[in-house]
Amino acid sequence: MASFLLSYVSCPKPISLTKDSGIDFSHRLCSFKINRVSFPAIKLSRRSTTMSVAPLDVRNIILDGYGYRQRFNVRSYEAETKNITIQSIFNFLEEASWNYVRLFWVYANESGATRRMIKNDLRWVVSRMELQIDEYPNPGDQVDIDTWVGSSGKNGMRRDWEIKWADTGKVFARATSTWAMVNQKTRRVWKMPDEVRAEISHSFIEKQAIIQDHPKKLCKIDDNARYVISGLQPKRKDMDMNNCVSNKTYVDWMLEAIPDECLNNYQLSKIILEYRSECKNSDVVQSISELGEVGIIENGYQENIHMNVNTQGDELPNVRNNRYTHLLQVKGESKCEEIVRGETTWKKRLV
Amino acid sequence: MASFLLSYVSCPKPISLTKDSGIDFSHRLCSFKINRVSFPAIKLSRRSTTMSVAPLDVRNIILDGYGYRQRFNVRSYEAETKNITIQSIFNFLEEASWNYVRLFWVYANESGATRRMIKNDLRWVVSRMELQIDEYPNPGDQVDIDTWVGSSGKNGMRRDWEIKWADTGKVFARATSTWAMVNQKTRRVWKMPDEVRAEISHSFIEKQAIIQDHPKKLCKIDDNARYVISGLQPKRKDMDMNNCVSNKTYVDWMLEAIPDECLNNYQLSKIILEYRSECKNSDVVQSISELGEVGIIENGYQENIHMNVNTQGDELPNVRNNRYTHLLQVKGESKCEEIVRGETTWKKRLV
Repeated sequence: MASFLLSYVSCPKPISLTKDSGIDFSHRLCSFKINRVSFPAIKLSRRSTTMSVAPLDVRNIILDGYGYRQRFNVRSYEAETKNITIQSIFNFLEEASWNYVRLFWVYANESGATRRMIKNDLRWVVSRMELQIDEYPNPGDQVDIDTWVGSSGKNGMRRDWEIKWADTGKVFARATSTWAMVNQKTRRVWKMPDEVRAEISHSFIEKQAIIQDHPKKLCKIDDNARYVISGLQPKRKDMDMNNCVSNKTYVDWMLEAIPDECLNNYQLSKIILEYRSECKNSDVVQSISELGEVGIIENGYQENIHMNVNTQGDELPNVRNNRYTHLLQVKGESKCEEIVRGETTWKKRLV
Repeated sequence: MASFLLSYVSCPKPISLTKDSGIDFSHRLCSFKINRVSFPAIKLSRRSTTMSVAPLDVRNIILDGYGYRQRFNVRSYEAETKNITIQSIFNFLEEASWNYVRLFWVYANESGATRRMIKNDLRWVVSRMELQIDEYPNPGDQVDIDTWVGSSGKNGMRRDWEIKWADTGKVFARATSTWAMVNQKTRRVWKMPDEVRAEISHSFIEKQAIIQDHPKKLCKIDDNARYVISGLQPKRKDMDMNNCVSNKTYVDWMLEAIPDECLNNYQLSKIILEYRSECKNSDVVQSISELGEVGIIENGYQENIHMNVNTQGDELPNVRNNRYTHLLQVKGESKCEEIVRGETTWKKRLV
């Protein structure tokens, strides 16, 4: 049975809250009193502050008007074994981007297509996404997500994010994504028209969350790989507001092909997704993964070994980092269609 | 490809936000200026207010110290076809309960077991849950959830919730749940020991979100029913913080067995779950549903018709309300084990 959480009010008799009984929690209190009734100590999260402004408040505008910041309270159901799930982090990134659009747009629709993009039948599609995460928030923690955009090559756009602890401002995760324009009729990548460039280029800034001049190209694996999960199908709840399969769902599917041994003892420190083609409603998807290079990072020394795929048993090599190569594909009779290539890097959990 | 949302900063030149440039959005502004630079109109949600206090702020204590209120910004990814999903509402209820526990508990653990419950090897399990919803929030809306507890019979506990618009305080959804104590060793329902009653009974109040003296007992259906979905298995992400299958997941599974015709044209107005036994990690679950009674509610007149289950085709009768009976079960070779019995009522969407 599901175990909804419940408990009881601890005060011995009813208390009345009056308007002046608001208490500032900006430093950790051991206990507090309301109208002379003592309340016992509250276990405040180390990462909790007092007030949050609403998502569309102009106080969320940062970087001299080029960036947007949103505060998130990590909720109980967004965690697994006490830490926030990687899927929830992808959701947070999407939410911050959506509010950036709502706060800043003038002539763009909710999915970020500008007036002249719409006139030219163009829309944005994401081609690559990378997230690096050093620490994991717990339920009750508050984090701030900053997001902004820049140019990517001649015809593309880059959206970056930084995730920080709300109390200290220390950045503990970074993400970057690249976007191309696609013609809705031909479904092909399109050169950015000058009139569209004129609309958007003044909003670009140079700042990068993850510095990379030449992003690593991911290698392709096939279903001879060690871990193969078949029969994955997008459901209603897997679609985003634009009726496309959400990033969270792609991450869900990739993690399906990670063995429990890894999920239990390692923590994701980096994930890369390379989007190859669109997943349709009716597609049946295969998630494939292969334990690839293993990086032993110790005293700044990194060794890369390509693992033998025929390793017997399910034990992972006892190293501090594991790396998996991923493929999401639709298996056809004669050929397979790639949906997403991916790579995940896992750091040994501290016991 | 996933369509993350993005757009561009609309200001013609960089702006500087100074400390005194905070703007109060408590009424809808058409446009605003920061340091003499005009910002165009922002489409504020009709349901958005300015500030939220953190979940553990004592300003969230209501009902003379017996209740807890939490404010939620509905996030973009919590919606489907513009409205919040019913699963997200179940998540919100869980989150509010969790914070009630964190704010009020003294001698209880995170799942609400008191000191003497732990001593007696007892824990809480939910036996029934009902949610009624009149209106659906959209992403960007803010809602408040109030929660409190009361007694349920001699040995049980009731947890109730009310969901209201943050701006007007109007209640648009109500939920109630009943809880029993279970002995962890025997896994059987247990009489509440007097010493436990002494710990918790002073926190109970009479207030009820949904008045019901004798909750309706749900009838049982079997896999001869019209809609049968097999092969559902709980995954990591389907478990809650206590490693039990979450309510959200049970609702997910129930909705799997609702035909698209209904999901597209009707909106859930009521859902009841009766928990029969625990779903284990390794269980393979069947979700079964049957279009049952149909209530035509017009001018206060309600007619109940038991539908012929052999109705041909997939068209639903053209009425304003549909009701489905549900069963989640683990199908064994000789007998099936019931997990959850359910009932959903659907109101025709206004076009």
